Parts: sequence; structure tokens; C-alpha cells
Amino acid sequence: MKTGLFSRFIPRQLDENLNRSLDRQVKLAVTGLSRSGKTVFITSLVHQLLHASEANVSQLPFFRIAHNGRLRGVKAMQQPDLHIPAFRYDQAIAQLCSQTPAWPTPTSGISEIRLAIRYRSDNLFFKHVAPISTLYLDIVDYPGEWLLDLPLLSWSYEQWSQHTLEACQYEPRQSLSQEWQAFIRTLALDKAPTGDSIRQASALYTAFLHRCKSPEYGLNGLQPGRFTMPGDLEGAPLLEFCPLPPLSGRYTDNSVYGVMRKRYDSYKEHVVKKFYNEHFSSFDRQVVLIDILRALNIGNAAFEDTRSAINMILNSFHYGKSGLLSWLWGFKIDRLLFAATKADHATPEQLPNMEKFLQNMLAKSQQHATFEGVETQTMALASVKCTQAAEANYQGRKIPCIKGVPMSGQQAVALFPGEVPIEMPMAEDWSKDRFQFMEFKPPRLANVHGGLPHIRLDRALEFLLGDKF
Amino acid sequence: MKTGLFSRFIPRQLDENLNRSLDRQVKLAVTGLSRSGKTVFITSLVHQLLHASEANVSQLPFFRIAHNGRLRGVKAMQQPDLHIPAFRYDQAIAQLCSQTPAWPTPTSGISEIRLAIRYRSDNLFFKHVAPISTLYLDIVDYPGEWLLDLPLLSWSYEQWSQHTLEACQYEPRQSLSQEWQAFIRTLALDKAPTGDSIRQASALYTAFLHRCKSPEYGLNGLQPGRFTMPGDLEGAPLLEFCPLPPLSGRYTDNSVYGVMRKRYDSYKEHVVKKFYNEHFSSFDRQVVLIDILRALNIGNAAFEDTRSAINMILNSFHYGKSGLLSWLWGFKIDRLLFAATKADHATPEQLPNMEKFLQNMLAKSQQHATFEGVETQTMALASVKCTQAAEANYQGRKIPCIKGVPMSGQQAVALFPGEVPIEMPMAEDWSKDRFQFMEFKPPRLANVHGGLPHIRLDRALEFLLGDKF
Repeated sequence: MKTGLFSRFIPRQLDENLNRSLDRQVKLAVTGLSRSGKTVFITSLVHQLLHASEANVSQLPFFRIAHNGRLRGVKAMQQPDLHIPAFRYDQAIAQLCSQTPAWPTPTSGISEIRLAIRYRSDNLFFKHVAPISTLYLDIVDYPGEWLLDLPLLSWSYEQWSQHTLEACQYEPRQSLSQEWQAFIRTLALDKAPTGDSIRQASALYTAFLHRCKSPEYGLNGLQPGRFTMPGDLEGAPLLEFCPLPPLSGRYTDNSVYGVMRKRYDSYKEHVVKKFYNEHFSSFDRQVVLIDILRALNIGNAAFEDTRSAINMILNSFHYGKSGLLSWLWGFKIDRLLFAATKADHATPEQLPNMEKFLQNMLAKSQQHATFEGVETQTMALASVKCTQAAEANYQGRKIPCIKGVPMSGQQAVALFPGEVPIEMPMAEDWSKDRFQFMEFKPPRLANVHGGLPHIRLDRALEFLLGDKF
Repeated sequence: MKTGLFSRFIPRQLDENLNRSLDRQVKLAVTGLSRSGKTVFITSLVHQLLHASEANVSQLPFFRIAHNGRLRGVKAMQQPDLHIPAFRYDQAIAQLCSQTPAWPTPTSGISEIRLAIRYRSDNLFFKHVAPISTLYLDIVDYPGEWLLDLPLLSWSYEQWSQHTLEACQYEPRQSLSQEWQAFIRTLALDKAPTGDSIRQASALYTAFLHRCKSPEYGLNGLQPGRFTMPGDLEGAPLLEFCPLPPLSGRYTDNSVYGVMRKRYDSYKEHVVKKFYNEHFSSFDRQVVLIDILRALNIGNAAFEDTRSAINMILNSFHYGKSGLLSWLWGFKIDRLLFAATKADHATPEQLPNMEKFLQNMLAKSQQHATFEGVETQTMALASVKCTQAAEANYQGRKIPCIKGVPMSGQQAVALFPGEVPIEMPMAEDWSKDRFQFMEFKPPRLANVHGGLPHIRLDRALEFLLGDKF
């Protein structure tokens, strides 16, 4: 129903055109360091939005547009980019809400889904001209490995080699890289490659990356990202190089060093710049998901690696916005959320610790955040809450615990998962098995239309989209 | 050693530069209708070239440059296009020449290998200026499906739909497409799609293509090619459409028909044109391999389908060269070879029949071949000969047969594989099991450096490269 002075005088056709031109669009990119729960996050986010106007009691109290009743309906639409694989929300939600609920199958490359969000504007002008507006939300899901490749654009082959070889001076990289390092020491870097030596060196380096990435070590800062997920580029020479120690003398383009350097440059050109130009430069908002608890479980090295990966990402964004990195010229992202997922795997009173801890991980760079034009926030959340708060008696005292079905079990158990530290643990604090956070099965949901149980997803939505309505 | 008037007066540096600028390059594209032996063809071709100057007795009598001793040496080089997967000759030859020889694993996408061919020029001028020249041969291997997509560029969605639906009026397409056709009849084509109907329609159409392609039916003329080999595009909307019957009334872009048509256009733009611009337009020579015997084995429908696929390819080339198809503007291919592979699966005296038969398959269009500037040839060959000619006694008469180890067996058997017809068989000639050509294991090779046994591979080389020396 149209009300107010304006609408009564605007002819219908003009009104419709105006409506259309007032519609807006926002591209929300979601990525994560490996196994951080990207697919579950997007599935839950889409589900919350689709059902936000149905629920009797708002599931999203901190997402203002939903809470104050201005949200009129959300619909999945045809995605705008036909050459990008579709994010299969339908399949993911079916797995999550089946009789025996399962976590959705993770995505492996890029994918996209579009939602049309209809809402009642409360802007004094729009309210009368176009009382119901539409925000098109395109959610783009892409592997964290691609994001961690962006810094390569500002590094020469020499710089990247140095950076990587330095990282290999510390465990577990040192042990894991031994075979590869021993092999490259046998090569005459300034001479033409003999036989299959370049391919062998790169195969050993790739095997090293795979071992670093395995659940046992859980490292994230692995470059180049496509080496462990090649897709259609499998077997292409630009995925066959590796870092090399610096050469003091001269070398030709046909030497081992020359060939490797050329391939590194091709990788930047054909893979990293392509991602930047075709996708990254069109993103408006970015979420980076991190499984802090898993990093804590694995130990000091995985944790330090996660910290360095996050800061590498953060620095890229800020340098980009301030113009220090010319390759990020023209990028639009103005809000960046680092979210620690699986907040339900710790007891509720640990939530502030988790957030504080995440903030501490990136404290230094974040101080410049607002100044440089990318508003950054940290948050702990659970996309789908799969535990309940409970209490246990321990030596006569009540202690808080959580109750859920462990991944390996069939029955719900109540347990005290351990404390999340606030400060960065010192190297000597990493006693064996200090942290043992568990993984849980998804909950059985009585009524999916009521929205999925979550922790702070509404706050994430408010930060990411709130200003767009 | 330099001889002659010219070289004595040319300073060394100038001489080297001249040498380099005289080096030439040729891009040879190899493709095949499914299971035609592309990988074996390239492996054998590379192997023959690499060892052509070593063999005591020439294995390549009809490849003049090798036979008259002007070939000085061939070497595998770094491929020029770093973003294209490498053709793994090393792996293929290892499989072929192992203790228990196996056919090499087929390639699934595009791949590339570069050979440097050093030869003594017999050109009166070059002979003195640059007595040893180099020809860089880039062999590019790509799926036949991609080639069969090229005609789409000249077809509108309506034309393509009509073409495909007409083909579905004949068996086995009629039966195989029933489920898909029944489904699209339930759709209101001029209305907006409901639920998942577009995705379902395309899934049924894709399943139909997969069944057509299965060894049981062996059809080739299946469009769009990427539906059955999506690679990184798996799940992208531009791989989700299908042909639809014509609509008489008006329809909007949001209707089922409008959405399908838009995706077809995106497919042409993002897939077919991309292949054309990035690869096809740079090819100098093209080989299309065809397993005629397999098509004969399967029966009338597979055979007719192969014929129509070959002619579709041939027409594209000729229209392109004569400028009738604007999208082929600028294409360079000036020699096109259709080769019937596995010629060793028939007895030697059937070879002329096989070639005649192949010629008959494309008789009509080929008449215009030379006129339109693409020299076309047909040939029967065996990349790696895996049978021997033998004789058997049948009712007191000697009949020719072949001896080899069948794919399913361990021992060599001698058998009469049947006759290859010269004329196109009429529909009524296709009695059940009229043709039963067999598949054989690769031969055990005593000395691989002597070159692999083959049939007419030297003639293929002469046609494809002979004029370049």
C-alpha cells in the first residue's frame, strides 16, 4: 500500500522504474582457512534470511532489519554470473536437516548464490517514493587458498623464495620439507635443467604442501594455493615450480632458476591476477572464517601459522585500501569480518574469551583499520549450534559444560571442553594436549522453518549488511 | 661445418641471429572422436620423431626428411604455453613399453608438448646461409567434443534446438531421450521456471548425452561438449540448459525459454568462443582421428552418427576458410587430416578398403576442399601396430588373418576379423553382428629405440609436416 505525499503523484510506470533504479546490490565474499566451516556458514546464513520473516519469534534479534519487522521476504534468485558454479544451498540444507543430520559436503572451488531481499525502507525520502525496496545479495564462496595467494602479486620470485625458505627453518615445516630441500640442493641452479629435475622439484614441493595441509599439521599459510587444488590446471607448467635459494651469479632464462622464476611470474599472471580481476575486485564485503579451536588443538605451530595467515590477509586489505599495493587498486571491500567459527564448541561463558583471543591475534594491524577505510571486525559465532549449555558436578562444585553428540559417537555427552585463553599462549605453555576441543554432529532439528539455532550469526549479518537497508 | 659462398662472409653473431629468425614453428592440433586413440597417436608420433635419426633402417620411409637423412635430431623442449597442461609423453611411453605393456591412460582435457626438430635445409638459399635449421613442433591434444562445439557459434538457440530435436526422432536417440523429452513437455515454456525445473531438465538432458556416449551406443555428435566433461565449470548455470521445441508466442527473458536461451548464448560466449580464441585460432594443422571399426561394430546408428560428425567438422573448416562463417575469420589451418585409426585391426589387404570407405563418408564436401584452401586428406593408419599378418586354412583354402593378443586374453590368437566394406552399407545391410572387429593389447617391444611398429604414420607425418622442411 502506498502512502504519503509523493507516491500519490507519481505515475505508475515512472514509479516502477524508480523502484528498479533504487534497488541495490551487494556482493558478499565468504572464504575460510581450511575446514573452517564455510559451507555451513553460507547454508545457515541463507536459511536464516529465507525464513527471517516467517518465524514468530525473531531468531535474529541483532539483525535490525529483521528484528524490527521491516524485512518483507527473501527469495533465492538466478545467480548473475552464469559461468560460476552455483552454491547448492538446496543440497546442503537437505543434508543438514535430514533424518540423520550430516554436515554438508564442503565446496572445493568458487560458487555463488543470489538472494533478493525485499524490505520496507525507513529512509525519509525512499519511504514515500519506494516503500518496498529490494537488495540483491550475491554470496560468493571461494577457497581461502586463493585469498592467501594475493600477497604474491607484490612479491618478486626472489622475495617469495626467501619468505618461504625462512618459514622452512621452523618446525614442522623444517622436517616436512627435508626431502624437497635436499633435492633442490643437488640442482645446479644456474645451469639448464637436466631431465625431469624441474618437475621432480615441484612434485616434492607440492607433496610438502599437502603434508602441511593435512589434518595432522593443519597449516594454512601455503603458497601457491593452486598447487594443492589445481582443477583444470592440473599438469600445467605454471603449477610446476618451487622456491629456490638466492643465486649470487648471473643466470639465463633457460637455467633452472630462470625457468622457475618465469613460471612463478606466469602463475601470478594467469592465476592470481585472473582471480583478482574476475572476482575479487567486484566484492563489496568479505568474511574470513577461522577455526581457532582446531588450531589450538593441533598446537603451537598450527596456531602461529593461523596467526600469520590472518595477518597476511589483513595487511593485504589495508595496503590495498591505502594504495600501498598497486595491484589492489580499485578494490571495493569496505567491511572485513574475521569470524572464529564453532563458538558452540566451548562453553557459553568462554565466548568473550574467544573474541578477545581473536582480536589479540591481529591486534597490531587492526589499529589502523578504520583509518585506512576498511572497517574490520572480529567475532566468535556458531553457524549452526550443535551443543547445549549444561552443568556438571565436580568435587561438590557446579562447573559449566556443553552437551552434544561427538562426531565419533551416537549419544549426547556432557563435557567440559576446556578453557579458551585470552592472551596468546607462550611457547612453553603448549604442554601436550593442553587443548582438546571436540567436533560435534549437527543437531536434529524439529522445525527447520523456525530457523537454525546459531550463535551471533545475527550480529555478523548486521555488521556485513545492516548499513545497506 | 659451414660451406658455400655466403657463410664465409657472414660474421658469427649475425649468422646466429639469422639462424634464429629462420627457425620456424608449426602448431599441430590432434583431436579425435571418442576413444579413437588420440593419446597413442601422439605418443607414437613423438616417439618416431625422437628416434628417427637413431634407427639403422628408417622406420619412416614416406616421411622424406627422415628417409633422406636430412633429419639431424629431435628433442623434447619446454612447452611455450605455461598454462596448458603438459602432454605426458614420458608416462605414456613408459606404460606402452613396460614389461606388461598397456595402452596409455587417455587424456581428458587439453595438453601440449613441444619438439625441436633440427634438420639440414635443402633450400638453395638456406642451405648456405643456415645449413642446420630448427622447426619447433607444438602438438596440442584436445577433446573431440570441443571441436564439435564449433558449429554452435553459427547457430542460434532456436536452430540448435531444432537440429537436436530432429536428431532425437531417430533411434537410439529417440529411446534414450524419452525421459528428458517427457519432462520438457510438462514445462510451461513461456512462464517463469518453477522450483528446480531448469536444473532438472538439464540434468535429464545431460544424462541422455552420457548414455549416447557410452560404449554401448558410441555416438559422437553430442552437443554441448562440456556437458559430459565439465571440468572446473561443473555446476555452473551455463552448463544447465537444454534444447526446447519452438515457441510460437512471445516470451520474456525470465521464462523457461528465455532463461535457457540466455544460457546457451553464455555457453557460446564463455566456452566455445574462448576455446576458439585461446587455442583453435592458433592451430596450423589439424588431425581428426576416427575409430571406424568401432563405429561399424556398434551398428548403423553409431556409424551414421560418426559420418554426420565428420561432415559437420569438415563443413566448419571449409565455411571458415571461405569466409562463410564469420567466427572462423582468421583461422590458419591449411591442412586437415582425417585418419581412421587401428588399421592393424583388419587384415593388411583391407587397408585400401578402409581408406576408400573413409573417403566415401565425406565424399560430397571434400570435393570443394582444395578450392577453399584447406587441403584435406583421408588415411587409414595404426599408431602402434599390435597385430601381425598371418594366414589360416579354411576348408582347404588359405585365408588372410591377423594375429595378436585380444584385450581380454593372455595368448596371441589368429583370427579373421571380417571385411571392411568400401561402399556405405545400406540400412538393411546391418544384420546383427555383421562387424566384429576386436581390440588388442599393445605388442611387447624388444627394442623401443628402434621406433614403434606402425602403419602409415610416416605418410601422416609427411602430409602434416613434409612441406615445412
